[in-house]
Amino acid sequence: MKKQISIFTILLLTTTVLFAQKVNKEDSIQLRKIYNASLLDGKSYDWLDHLSNKIGGRLSGSANAEKAVKYTQAELDKLGLDKVWLQPVMVPKWVRGLKEYSFMETGPGITSIMDICALGGSVATPNAGLKAGVIEVKSLEELAVLGKEKIQGKIVFYNRPMQADLIHTFEAYGGCVDQRYSGAAEAAKYGAVGIVVRSMNLRQDDFPHTGAMSYGDLPESQRIPACAISTNGADKLSNTLKLIPNLNFYFKQNCKVFPDVQSHNVIGEITGSKYPNKYMIVGGHLDSWDLGDGSHDDGAGVVQSMDVLRLLKKTGYKPEHSIRVVLFMNEENGLRGGREYATQANLKKENHVFALESDSGGFTPRGFSFDCDDANFAQIQSWEQLFKPYLIHYFEKGGSGADIGPLKKDGIVLAGLRPDSQRYFDYHHAESDTFDAVNKRELELGAATMTSLIYLMDKYGVKNSAAQIKN
Amino acid sequence: MKKQISIFTILLLTTTVLFAQKVNKEDSIQLRKIYNASLLDGKSYDWLDHLSNKIGGRLSGSANAEKAVKYTQAELDKLGLDKVWLQPVMVPKWVRGLKEYSFMETGPGITSIMDICALGGSVATPNAGLKAGVIEVKSLEELAVLGKEKIQGKIVFYNRPMQADLIHTFEAYGGCVDQRYSGAAEAAKYGAVGIVVRSMNLRQDDFPHTGAMSYGDLPESQRIPACAISTNGADKLSNTLKLIPNLNFYFKQNCKVFPDVQSHNVIGEITGSKYPNKYMIVGGHLDSWDLGDGSHDDGAGVVQSMDVLRLLKKTGYKPEHSIRVVLFMNEENGLRGGREYATQANLKKENHVFALESDSGGFTPRGFSFDCDDANFAQIQSWEQLFKPYLIHYFEKGGSGADIGPLKKDGIVLAGLRPDSQRYFDYHHAESDTFDAVNKRELELGAATMTSLIYLMDKYGVKNSAAQIKN
Repeated sequence: MKKQISIFTILLLTTTVLFAQKVNKEDSIQLRKIYNASLLDGKSYDWLDHLSNKIGGRLSGSANAEKAVKYTQAELDKLGLDKVWLQPVMVPKWVRGLKEYSFMETGPGITSIMDICALGGSVATPNAGLKAGVIEVKSLEELAVLGKEKIQGKIVFYNRPMQADLIHTFEAYGGCVDQRYSGAAEAAKYGAVGIVVRSMNLRQDDFPHTGAMSYGDLPESQRIPACAISTNGADKLSNTLKLIPNLNFYFKQNCKVFPDVQSHNVIGEITGSKYPNKYMIVGGHLDSWDLGDGSHDDGAGVVQSMDVLRLLKKTGYKPEHSIRVVLFMNEENGLRGGREYATQANLKKENHVFALESDSGGFTPRGFSFDCDDANFAQIQSWEQLFKPYLIHYFEKGGSGADIGPLKKDGIVLAGLRPDSQRYFDYHHAESDTFDAVNKRELELGAATMTSLIYLMDKYGVKNSAAQIKN
Repeated sequence: MKKQISIFTILLLTTTVLFAQKVNKEDSIQLRKIYNASLLDGKSYDWLDHLSNKIGGRLSGSANAEKAVKYTQAELDKLGLDKVWLQPVMVPKWVRGLKEYSFMETGPGITSIMDICALGGSVATPNAGLKAGVIEVKSLEELAVLGKEKIQGKIVFYNRPMQADLIHTFEAYGGCVDQRYSGAAEAAKYGAVGIVVRSMNLRQDDFPHTGAMSYGDLPESQRIPACAISTNGADKLSNTLKLIPNLNFYFKQNCKVFPDVQSHNVIGEITGSKYPNKYMIVGGHLDSWDLGDGSHDDGAGVVQSMDVLRLLKKTGYKPEHSIRVVLFMNEENGLRGGREYATQANLKKENHVFALESDSGGFTPRGFSFDCDDANFAQIQSWEQLFKPYLIHYFEKGGSGADIGPLKKDGIVLAGLRPDSQRYFDYHHAESDTFDAVNKRELELGAATMTSLIYLMDKYGVKNSAAQIKN
C-alpha cells in the first residue's frame, strides 16, 4: 500500500512538474506583462482614492452608495468595454443617525465615556438612552446556563475575543461573529434589555467595529438595541466589572430602518471571442459600512476588479470567454446584489463557469482559495510555478466570496483572492478603514494576481464539468 | 537525458516528501507550541514599545544607543539565560545637529521649502548654507557624459527612482542605492558643490530618507555636503527644473563627525547540552538612524531575536548547540559590531555553524533566504511542509544579513528572515519608521518563524561541512 501511494505521488508530482514546464514560457511572459502594467501603470489606486476620499463610506441605500454606482459606471464607460450597465436591485436602508453615546457608571455620578457604535440593523435605544446593569458572557451558550433570572433587565456583554493563535485571522473572526450576529436575538429571549459586543478586532485599540446583526424571527416589540465596543473598551468594562459587579452601562443610539430603496449592481463586460455565452466574472462589493470610508472593505476589491478588465485590454489579451466585472451592491447587510445577480443569470440562462471575488482587503496578495471539483483544482495547481516570481503561493480549497456564493452550482469554479490577513481586522467595519491604510503596491499586486488568474482560466477553460458544455 | 532528469526529479521529490513526512509529527507539535507562545504570550512587542517609545532613534555613538544597550542587557538578564554580556566595540559618531533647512528658488525672492535631510556621514554645508544651480542626473555614469563644464559649481540632483515593477523591493533598493552611497564622491570629482538624492522610497510622500554614504578616498577638503529629498520633493524639483532650468537650490545642514566612541554588542547565550562549543546565533542590529525611532529598522529584528531565546525556554526546548542572541551595534554606518563579533569569534576559535539575522522589518514573515551549500539547503527545504500551516513558503538561496556576513566561511549556514517587503521602504531610514507602523501579530509571527528555524537547525544540525567537525 505504501508503495502504491508513493508511485501515485510520483506520477502526480511528475505530471504537475511537466505540465507546469509546458505552459511556463508563453504564460510567464503574459503574467510579467500583467504585473508590469499594474505596478507601473495601474488605475486601482487612483480609483480607490476617489471612492474613499471623494465619496467615502457607502452604506446600502445611502446617497454615497448611489454616488459610487454612478462613479464606477462612468469609469467603466471610459475603458472601452463591450458593454457597461446597471442591474437594478432593491436594498435595505438602515441609517445610523446621530453618533452614539455611552458611558460606564461605577458609582453615583462617577462615569467614564466608552467607545461604542450601533451594530448594523440594530434598533435605537429609547430617546433618553438605556441604562442597566451588565452581565458578561463569553458565548451564546452561556445564556442558557445563567438563565432568565440573571439576565432579565440586564445588558448582556459578549466578550469572547478573537483567538490570537489562529494564523488565518478569518478563522478567528468566524469563531466570534455569532456574538455579533445573533447576540441580541438570543439575549432578548432571556429578557435582556440590550447587548454590548466586543469588537471583532485582534488589536487593542479604541475603535468600535460595526457589522451585520439579525433579530431572526423575533417580533419587533421584543427587539433590543445592540452595540459594539472597542477592544480597549471591552477590557476596561470587563476589568471594572470584576471590581464593581453592579456597575451600570448607559448607551444611546439613534439608528433607524427605512423602507427598502432601489440601488444597482454595476456591470462591465468584454464579450468573449470564442465562447461569448460562457461567463467568467470578477468582482467586489460597492457598498461598505458607514464608519470609515470602506477602503479595504471592499473599495480595494472593487477597484482591483475594475482594473482586471483594463489590464487584460492593456496587455493586448483578447479573452475567449465573456469576462465581466461585477460590482455588487449590499454585501454588508443583505447580500441583495449577489442574490439578484445570480437570479438574473439563471433567468437568462447565462452559463457562468468561473467567478472570482476580492473581499479580504487590499493587502499583499498571497494566493486564492477555491470552491471547485478536483479536476479543476488540479489544473489550477499546475499554474503554481507561474505565480512563484510574484510570491503568490497559496492555492487551497476553501471558501470564495459572499457575493458570488449564490452562483454556486455543479461545475462552476468559485475563487476568492487571499491577501495577507494579519492586519485586516484592525480596520474591518471600523472608522480606521481608510485610504491611508491601503498600500498602493499591495493593492496593485492584488489586481495583477487576479488578472493573471482570469487570464489562465480563460485560456485553459474550466474542466470536465456541467458548465463546460460547449455552446 | 530527458528521462534521466525526470527520474532524478522523481527521486528528489519523493525523498523530500518522505523525509518531510518523517519529521512532521514531533516537529509540527513543537512548531505549534512556538507559534502559540509567541502569539499568545510574546514579549517582542512590549520590548519594541520600550525601545521605540521610551528610548527612540539609536544612532551609533548617541546617548540613546547606550540606553538601548543597557535596556536590552537588563531584559536579557531577566530571561534566565546561561550568560549575558557586553562585547566592546568602537563605533563612529556622526551627529546630525540642528534640523536641516532647504528651499528651491525659482526667481528673485520666490522660494519654496523642500523636505530634505543630511545623508549619514555627510559634511555640513557652510554656516550660511549652500546655494547653487542644479543639474539633474539619473545615474553616476551620466556624470562622465555631462563632464566637468556642466557640473562645476552645481548641485548634482540624483533622481533615479526605485523600480516599481520589481516584486522584491530590496532589488529595487539595490538598483538605486549607489546614488546615495557614492553620489557625493563621484560628483565632487567633476566640481559639484553638493548633491541632493531622491529618497529610496517606492511611495510618493514627504519624508526624506537618510542612509549611509561614503566619500571613499576623497581628501577632506574636497568633500561636498549630501542630502536626501523626499519622493514628492524630488518630483517637484524635477518638474520645476523642466520649466526653470536655472533655478537655485539652497540647503543648510549642520552635521558633524566626532571621534569614535566605545559602544557594545549585547549578547546572551543558552549553552548547548551536547555541543556547547558549537554556536548558532540569531540577531538584529541595535543601532538605528536618528530620524524615526527605528522600529522596523531594526528594532523589530532586535526584539524578535531576544524572543527566540525566551520562546525556546518557554516551550521547554533544551538546545544541543549553544544558542546566542547577538544585538549588533553600528550596522547602519560602519558595521563595526558585526565585524568585531566575527573577529572575536575567530580569535577565540568559537565554531559558529549557523547564523540568522532579522533586518528587513517587522512585517508578516514569508520565509528565509540562505547562504549555504547544497547539502544544507536540501535539508532546510525538507522542512518546508512544517512551515506551511504558518504560511511560511519562501525558502531560497540568497543573501542573509549584513551583521552576520563577516562570519562567512566554508560550511557555515547563514540565513536572513524575509518578511513581506512591499511596505518596508515606506519607512526605511525615515521619520516614518515608528512603532505604530509595526503590527503586533506580524512581529510575533516573525519571532516564531525564527525560533522554529533555530529549533530545527539545532535539532538536525548542520550537514557535511567544515563546521560540522564533532567537538
